[in-house]
Amino acid sequence: VAIKEPMKAHVKSIPGPKSILYLKRLKKLNGAWSFPHPFVHSDKSQGCYIQDIDGNRFLDFASQIASNPLGYNHPDLLKVVKRYNTHPIKFAGQDFVIKEHIDMLEELLSIVPKSLNAAFLVNSGAEAVENAIKVCMRKRPETKYGISFEHAFHGRTLGALSLTNTRSVYKKNFLQLPMQRLPFTREATTTLLRLVEEEGSQENIGFVIIEPIQGEGGYNLPVEDLLGSVRKITKKYNIPLICDEVQSGMGRTGKWWAHQHFDIVPDVMSVAKALQVGACISSKEMFPEPGAISSTWGGGHRMDLALGIETIHIIQREHLLSSIQGQGKYLKERLNELNLTNVRGLGLMVAFDMPTKINRDNLVLECLKQGLVLLGCGKQSVRMIPPYIITKEEIDEAVMILERAVKVSSQKGFKHRGKICEFIECN
Amino acid sequence: VAIKEPMKAHVKSIPGPKSILYLKRLKKLNGAWSFPHPFVHSDKSQGCYIQDIDGNRFLDFASQIASNPLGYNHPDLLKVVKRYNTHPIKFAGQDFVIKEHIDMLEELLSIVPKSLNAAFLVNSGAEAVENAIKVCMRKRPETKYGISFEHAFHGRTLGALSLTNTRSVYKKNFLQLPMQRLPFTREATTTLLRLVEEEGSQENIGFVIIEPIQGEGGYNLPVEDLLGSVRKITKKYNIPLICDEVQSGMGRTGKWWAHQHFDIVPDVMSVAKALQVGACISSKEMFPEPGAISSTWGGGHRMDLALGIETIHIIQREHLLSSIQGQGKYLKERLNELNLTNVRGLGLMVAFDMPTKINRDNLVLECLKQGLVLLGCGKQSVRMIPPYIITKEEIDEAVMILERAVKVSSQKGFKHRGKICEFIECN
Repeated sequence: VAIKEPMKAHVKSIPGPKSILYLKRLKKLNGAWSFPHPFVHSDKSQGCYIQDIDGNRFLDFASQIASNPLGYNHPDLLKVVKRYNTHPIKFAGQDFVIKEHIDMLEELLSIVPKSLNAAFLVNSGAEAVENAIKVCMRKRPETKYGISFEHAFHGRTLGALSLTNTRSVYKKNFLQLPMQRLPFTREATTTLLRLVEEEGSQENIGFVIIEPIQGEGGYNLPVEDLLGSVRKITKKYNIPLICDEVQSGMGRTGKWWAHQHFDIVPDVMSVAKALQVGACISSKEMFPEPGAISSTWGGGHRMDLALGIETIHIIQREHLLSSIQGQGKYLKERLNELNLTNVRGLGLMVAFDMPTKINRDNLVLECLKQGLVLLGCGKQSVRMIPPYIITKEEIDEAVMILERAVKVSSQKGFKHRGKICEFIECN
Repeated sequence: VAIKEPMKAHVKSIPGPKSILYLKRLKKLNGAWSFPHPFVHSDKSQGCYIQDIDGNRFLDFASQIASNPLGYNHPDLLKVVKRYNTHPIKFAGQDFVIKEHIDMLEELLSIVPKSLNAAFLVNSGAEAVENAIKVCMRKRPETKYGISFEHAFHGRTLGALSLTNTRSVYKKNFLQLPMQRLPFTREATTTLLRLVEEEGSQENIGFVIIEPIQGEGGYNLPVEDLLGSVRKITKKYNIPLICDEVQSGMGRTGKWWAHQHFDIVPDVMSVAKALQVGACISSKEMFPEPGAISSTWGGGHRMDLALGIETIHIIQREHLLSSIQGQGKYLKERLNELNLTNVRGLGLMVAFDMPTKINRDNLVLECLKQGLVLLGCGKQSVRMIPPYIITKEEIDEAVMILERAVKVSSQKGFKHRGKICEFIECN
């Protein structure tokens, strides 16, 4: 039997000549242009490797921002894609019924805490958060504000955005809903208790929303017992607690949900990304009267639903939760060998810090040029969120590229040069 | 040549035995359960006819709430579905580039007014509206409120919902952004001028948003020159005007955009439904700095994008805009023959009124039982939004069912009976 050559990252030129043509067109017409990774995806990606239309091959430690957890062209997901050969693919799921809607609800509710026994499927993580807070407010007629955390990211629609406390460019000039902010530290409980008690009435607090591990805001792990004590206070005062698991959920941390590392059960959960659809999950009693919440397409996208269901099945069948734990541990060990700062994370939700934002941006770009796709987060952190199917060999390859890129990009006066500068935010 | 028997609606039992099993499961688990049409879709729908899993066949005058404009299993859309045989289907479209994103922007921008030369693709109509108002507010640092209309529906996320003025069940207890409301009548201009002048500064008005023809709120056509005079005032005072074309756009009214019937050009447009993805469309100068707006999946769903592009192509290739005008005229003529009240609409966006809400609900249900799928809107209106490919024969069949159902359901003391009552809101 011929030994199959392992795949390797390989970058000839970035952006390659074909990608350049597309990137120029996109830059001109996309009102939200914000320096995407400067290459164009081809159909030929495989496993943890992205292949672009110029034949460059990248090792993917970004997983489409945690929304593609099983890599590229996984054979079982391919089967699902090929199974769909009728039109429409997308129905008005709350008004018209398709089987996949029901199947997804059953699968999803089988992997969440038992007290959460109903869900509302929507189109995105932002919509999941919007509905999570709507569900709470409807139950709390005295709501005057909600509570989120410093460095929180909950999405870009204006309700979710009012809860988001990362970058000012996300919110400048926008009308906002009234929200209070807790530090993501030990002091959270003091502030929360002050709000509950000093403000006269806890009835004015619509909800507390927390990412068990903060995502966009910097892959920040909660200090010991932050979640436990927030859960205790919210329970005592009967304030609904929402866990936003859009990025941290669906197995990313080695458990189905990141909050399970901290032994709490939320009243409401928002989920999306790896699930392939958005979901607001709670108890049937918590959900409001008919007509109160809805969505044209929510629960109606047959293929997204079927791919989400199969994603759950594959994670179960291939015992990926335990391998996520093992590979995550190995990744952190290897990163620590490089003497990187503040290596942290749970499972395959891992990050480290660079000395400055410019260092971080340069490192992410240099890795890309050498074939490793990464994302930044927080002020100066790098996130590493490979597909759940990552192997030790692939982690080794990534760490090798990273080591080389740290050296190159940390040199004094380092600057990127060449065609790429037309498509990146040059420092 | 054998003459092909024309398809006909045919309902044996609703819900059929197979559908009942699914509906029971869905009712238990769907937190947003709100009495969907009580049947489950099969793969075998064709053209303007829905077939359910129990073999019932319905004539579709709802088009998945205007989001499936070309009927079922259109051969050219089938080709698109079949073309996609790789995974993932859905990318993180603002951070990673796929060709379909660029192609969609080019196609979409080719059918909007020339001054709108950029777009931001998102996941839903609600997200399209959220981004439309964000784009305006970023340009208007003094924004203290936005302006929408009575009976307006702009979506369910909290920004869009703050602009929505239809049913109280949509908004009760929810925190809201500060908005002002204009009547959807001749008096709108007086109120708008009062806001602009009396409040001291027009700088506090972030935007005016209007549905050229109101959708969910009742298929209300604007009084003569409402749009023209609102456009005139907003232009004079430099206030951005948003046309929400989520339901009325993409050819539904016999022109690409409903606002084109009124000879105005908006500064921003929100689009979704028939386009298969959401879009906020404006001029490149109107869009904010990089990072200000984004979305994980927006611009990343290859199949939805490809189906939306092909939808535009089919409408062009099959000259559907002109047949929409013709069939819409014919439909209104036929409805007027039945002496229905307030028959109105443009193109295939048509509605009429029933004497009461109960009459309306009963009629919609009775039609369903006889094989015609309709939707309500407003307080007591019925909307008729068939696929653009509807024929005169199919309109005749729908009108025949409607006539029969009006007679049956208007009898004194009429009540629905049987299994269906478990799955509907019984009056």
